[in-house]
Amino acid sequence: MRRPQIAVALVHHPVCDRRGDIITTAVTNLDLHDIARTCRTYNVGRYYVVTPVAEQKRLVQRLLDHWCKGYGATHNPARRDALELIEVVDGLDDARNAWQKVCGRPVTPVLTGARSSDGIGYRHCREMADELPLLLVFGTGSGLAPRLFEQGWPVLDPIHGGGEYNHLSVRAAVAIIIDRLLAANDRAAEEINQNT
Amino acid sequence: MRRPQIAVALVHHPVCDRRGDIITTAVTNLDLHDIARTCRTYNVGRYYVVTPVAEQKRLVQRLLDHWCKGYGATHNPARRDALELIEVVDGLDDARNAWQKVCGRPVTPVLTGARSSDGIGYRHCREMADELPLLLVFGTGSGLAPRLFEQGWPVLDPIHGGGEYNHLSVRAAVAIIIDRLLAANDRAAEEINQNT
Repeated sequence: MRRPQIAVALVHHPVCDRRGDIITTAVTNLDLHDIARTCRTYNVGRYYVVTPVAEQKRLVQRLLDHWCKGYGATHNPARRDALELIEVVDGLDDARNAWQKVCGRPVTPVLTGARSSDGIGYRHCREMADELPLLLVFGTGSGLAPRLFEQGWPVLDPIHGGGEYNHLSVRAAVAIIIDRLLAANDRAAEEINQNT
Repeated sequence: MRRPQIAVALVHHPVCDRRGDIITTAVTNLDLHDIARTCRTYNVGRYYVVTPVAEQKRLVQRLLDHWCKGYGATHNPARRDALELIEVVDGLDDARNAWQKVCGRPVTPVLTGARSSDGIGYRHCREMADELPLLLVFGTGSGLAPRLFEQGWPVLDPIHGGGEYNHLSVRAAVAIIIDRLLAANDRAAEEINQNT
């Protein structure tokens, strides 16, 4: 069985603010680093940072140049190995097209969010990933814009920790979801993969 | 079966730098927020921030006052609900004693790290958590000091994502480990808990 082809997209537009208005969030340094390190740990193929803002794109590129080509690359190669996964794109369609080009076949976006009520389970999503390249889509701010949920794309079940509180950071949500879908080489993962 | 009693300790001293020297790291704002939100999501009982540095303790306390009592508490109650779990303590022993007082019985520290080779698995740790209150201990910097591993405390298996890369952020590691140990209410978790 070949390794699942999964990429991550972190969307800065269109997303909601806490009142539900559509906004564009700023790219944060730590979202780049943390999520790239998670992706690298689990052999995620690409990490698309989605922002239409030219100034933000330049900022990310400057950071990537430092860590992937500049002083940072020799000072901390582990950081370079992670950040090399990042590609900055204007919109979610561009992320999907880019990942499709890498995979050489159609890619299915899988949306994530804290509020979806009729999502697909993690087992189902793992089975999908065995068959199709996936693009896992995460929203910043207060989550992906409603219009993204009207495309007919599958939506992953929200993470429930056991209570009503559903305010995980996007960095934690990415880590947990990637682990549930891709953990492969330790005992916990063996348990999951053998039994489900 | 009662809910497992698990607390988290984030250690800023004694930890290692990349060369293995023992250092004290600075508390970061995002470690407080991200890990508190993860803890709150999974009903973790307490989040102990371990630092012996008085100035750092004051800084954390100021931040907590803002979010738990000040303007932040009314502006963003969800943030307050998470940060209320934080308690700042001087050392790991203080964290253990404090958590012991909450639980009213002896607490077992469980160490975490990217390098341990003879750790306990996640299933084993879940079984322990059914019987005993646990204190999950995470290191900042390049991980917990070697002397903490000489106390005879159980060490949790490192997280392997499938390759050699083991540079998860501590925020991601906490999220993944807590999810593996405590996820309870969704399909993925049901799969884990029924089958292991």
